[in-house]
Amino acid sequence: MKDRLVIFDTTLRDGEQSPGAAMTRDEKLRIARQLERLKVDVIEAGFAAASPGDAEAIRAIAEVIKDSTVCSLARANERDVRAAGEAIRPAARGRIHTFIATSPIHMEKKLRMQPDQVVEAAVAAVKLALQYTDDVEFSAEDAVRSEMDFLVRIFDAVIQAGAKTINVPDTVGYAVPALWGERFRTLIERVPGADKVIWSTHCHNDLGMAVANSLAAVQAGARQVECTINGLGERAGNASLEEVVMAVRTRPDVFAVETGIDASQIVASSKLVSTITGYPVQPNKAIVGANAFSHESGIHQDGVLKHRETYEIMRPEDVGWSTNRLTLGKLSGRNAFRKRLEELGIVVESEEQLNHAFGRFKELADKKSEIFDEDLQALMSDEAQEAESERFKLVSARFHSETGETPTAALTLSVDGHEVKTESDGSGPVDAAFRAIESVAKSGAALLLYSVNAITTGTDAQGEVTVRLSHGARVVNGQGADTDIIVASAKAYLNALNKLQAGAEKLNPQAETV
Amino acid sequence: MKDRLVIFDTTLRDGEQSPGAAMTRDEKLRIARQLERLKVDVIEAGFAAASPGDAEAIRAIAEVIKDSTVCSLARANERDVRAAGEAIRPAARGRIHTFIATSPIHMEKKLRMQPDQVVEAAVAAVKLALQYTDDVEFSAEDAVRSEMDFLVRIFDAVIQAGAKTINVPDTVGYAVPALWGERFRTLIERVPGADKVIWSTHCHNDLGMAVANSLAAVQAGARQVECTINGLGERAGNASLEEVVMAVRTRPDVFAVETGIDASQIVASSKLVSTITGYPVQPNKAIVGANAFSHESGIHQDGVLKHRETYEIMRPEDVGWSTNRLTLGKLSGRNAFRKRLEELGIVVESEEQLNHAFGRFKELADKKSEIFDEDLQALMSDEAQEAESERFKLVSARFHSETGETPTAALTLSVDGHEVKTESDGSGPVDAAFRAIESVAKSGAALLLYSVNAITTGTDAQGEVTVRLSHGARVVNGQGADTDIIVASAKAYLNALNKLQAGAEKLNPQAETV
Repeated sequence: MKDRLVIFDTTLRDGEQSPGAAMTRDEKLRIARQLERLKVDVIEAGFAAASPGDAEAIRAIAEVIKDSTVCSLARANERDVRAAGEAIRPAARGRIHTFIATSPIHMEKKLRMQPDQVVEAAVAAVKLALQYTDDVEFSAEDAVRSEMDFLVRIFDAVIQAGAKTINVPDTVGYAVPALWGERFRTLIERVPGADKVIWSTHCHNDLGMAVANSLAAVQAGARQVECTINGLGERAGNASLEEVVMAVRTRPDVFAVETGIDASQIVASSKLVSTITGYPVQPNKAIVGANAFSHESGIHQDGVLKHRETYEIMRPEDVGWSTNRLTLGKLSGRNAFRKRLEELGIVVESEEQLNHAFGRFKELADKKSEIFDEDLQALMSDEAQEAESERFKLVSARFHSETGETPTAALTLSVDGHEVKTESDGSGPVDAAFRAIESVAKSGAALLLYSVNAITTGTDAQGEVTVRLSHGARVVNGQGADTDIIVASAKAYLNALNKLQAGAEKLNPQAETV
Repeated sequence: MKDRLVIFDTTLRDGEQSPGAAMTRDEKLRIARQLERLKVDVIEAGFAAASPGDAEAIRAIAEVIKDSTVCSLARANERDVRAAGEAIRPAARGRIHTFIATSPIHMEKKLRMQPDQVVEAAVAAVKLALQYTDDVEFSAEDAVRSEMDFLVRIFDAVIQAGAKTINVPDTVGYAVPALWGERFRTLIERVPGADKVIWSTHCHNDLGMAVANSLAAVQAGARQVECTINGLGERAGNASLEEVVMAVRTRPDVFAVETGIDASQIVASSKLVSTITGYPVQPNKAIVGANAFSHESGIHQDGVLKHRETYEIMRPEDVGWSTNRLTLGKLSGRNAFRKRLEELGIVVESEEQLNHAFGRFKELADKKSEIFDEDLQALMSDEAQEAESERFKLVSARFHSETGETPTAALTLSVDGHEVKTESDGSGPVDAAFRAIESVAKSGAALLLYSVNAITTGTDAQGEVTVRLSHGARVVNGQGADTDIIVASAKAYLNALNKLQAGAEKLNPQAETV
């Protein structure tokens, strides 16, 4: 029988550290539920000490998730470990993941600590964590640039202290597969008690090799991979969960391990994370890109169709690409609507919510001839956003643009429950809408990103707009969907403003001194 | 002294096989000029036998490019090799790249040939190619699934016949680094005359390991990597040129080779290819993604800023990310405009073109307070498109949308030089504009993709729209940029229609039997 490869998903922690990818509690819950359906072994739900909101989100996830272990990150100090321990308390299975940097450059310049102090802090953190759970993971930050003798020393010490998983991260994305595998072989050979723990790898993609490095570690004995949906994460991101999982499945001759992942949930997970974070997936992305399987492109050559295996090593349906995506139309009833939501894994909290969503579905079906799964997902995502506390809402809008004239937008907004009329001109109708909103909101935010994707194909497709705003050190994404792109843009801008009002400051764990 | 690693760029051939990425002759020329500035060693400019248009584009590139070798692909048959030979004739340095499949599955199901016949065809093709150039490359398609003994036999035969470069492709993206390196070691050891040729690797990214596989081959002795800008290519794409080049530069301790690439041209190359093909680059893409360097995100933590090397292994300026992108404003004169174009490497063909472009620049500066490099690139890209033969042009437009009413678009188009007025309503103003255009053009094309990116930040940014249309077996991308997103959309749709009218059918080399 093959060894189990533990899939540790850190979309909600390391993925969330991407600029602008910060999520609300409800967004995190929706992703956590999807990760459970995907059957990941461990969900790293956040970094409890980063902010009260982060701790609260971890606690909410720990209360709901039953099948996956729920984990919080913690620097190796008492405050962080206690915050993590409290946050995971409701979990059926909870883990504390504590870390400290071990490379000379990080110890000297960031921590300003001597190696002896670093070992001491690591051991103390592991021991304290054991008061909350027997599932404690320890990471040596920047292990790729750490000295081997020091890694052996600190890992020996934390294993003696009771850590069950030892994570070796390539924090800066500097590793290459052959050397990274070699590092694991040496560690497993030299660290006393290495056979009593699970070795884990956490790779970044700065040189495009995060997946290959992770798998080289697996070939050398690692039995946990830390990864994210769509390879989300700081800079060039983390190892992609979907690539790691499908490489292991496609090459059983090479990898003597198997995962517990339900691969048919991969595409749904990718779309959910992309929608919520506003991070698009490029078409030529492996597994989850729109072109990853050539048959999706609409172009076929006879020879390829007849002998699919001549060019395809995986089947698109294995990872959840469905060919028949048309689901509902104008005449579909309430039961068909409810049933399709269930099939899509969308949880409706109450009859009232269902009724409201169904009403919006009918409105959409009036404007758009065919309703696809993606339309339903966008609609329900809109519903979820509305449920969150909103200062600003769009009531109605009028736009006009004409060659030779300045485009104008006239909006009626609801601000804290009161209707306010506003209008503005601008360099285009979207600019005019944003200016009209700002003349009321006066947020002072800067627009960092504006992007639109058609949710489905066809000229009557809905546009899904992402607007990224920054204000001071905070960056938020807003989303809006509508068949009218200007309306979708206004909704997205208002959604971002609502998040800007609601959120709290958050620490970046790795940028802080302990 | 270190060995030279030959960088063989196939953006214009394998990259162009991405659905919808087909380029016009002028677009290919613009990319080829940029690849020359990037100092790639070999530009694979196309597949001459695919279509008269492809042959013509290769010939045009061969006439212009002086510093890079210009190459055409050719299946291993007389017609293909002669077409390739004719196309590269004007080149200062020309190469013919001939290939045939060598795996049991491809030989049996696609070629329907016996192994002996395959060897015979390969040898004949190489000999014929030598009549046109002494720089002949041979590829064994699907080498990853070919039998080692057969690979040794066919490589031995083509080296005796005079091939100078031997390419070993992972056509289906199935390889893993350790085994791929091992395959090269075995081949180099077993093939007679292996030391007289350059070994080359060509990897696909279906399991996310194209770059790592390419570099494992380099560690095992390969001295040419075939790759594309942004990892463009069929399905999940090819190895990314930028990742291969920067990995070699960042880890000189591991890779005993150096490239001739001018890395400071990487970001400009990435943007040009993305704009022309309509393939966006995801923000978490290594090297060329908008977030690849954390400092680009607008968020800084003191610790990171002070000691950049704690988290960055490369400097963004090394690959051409500039921090100061503001270039021109309303008051900039004609000379400043010309000078900035030169600095951006944009070639203006005549004084007349410069005057026209400068007029449009002034119009843009009236609408938009700050003009960035990206705006100039979009503007000049628009100019280049206009220069191409155009049946349809936008003369003027009026749009109106209002909550509770159906959005409308009224356009005046120029069709073959005659003005035509048209109007329509739609589910949104973009839909209305597309319907209005179709009511005149009656193309019957289907909309496959609609996407918008803000070219710069700020609410008065220009929107750059990509529209992908399909008609029968043909797929084209159209682009349009404007501060008014609806106008940009209409321009993009018209641009796609013009391409649909102009282009010719093209073969996909790998899907055809020889």
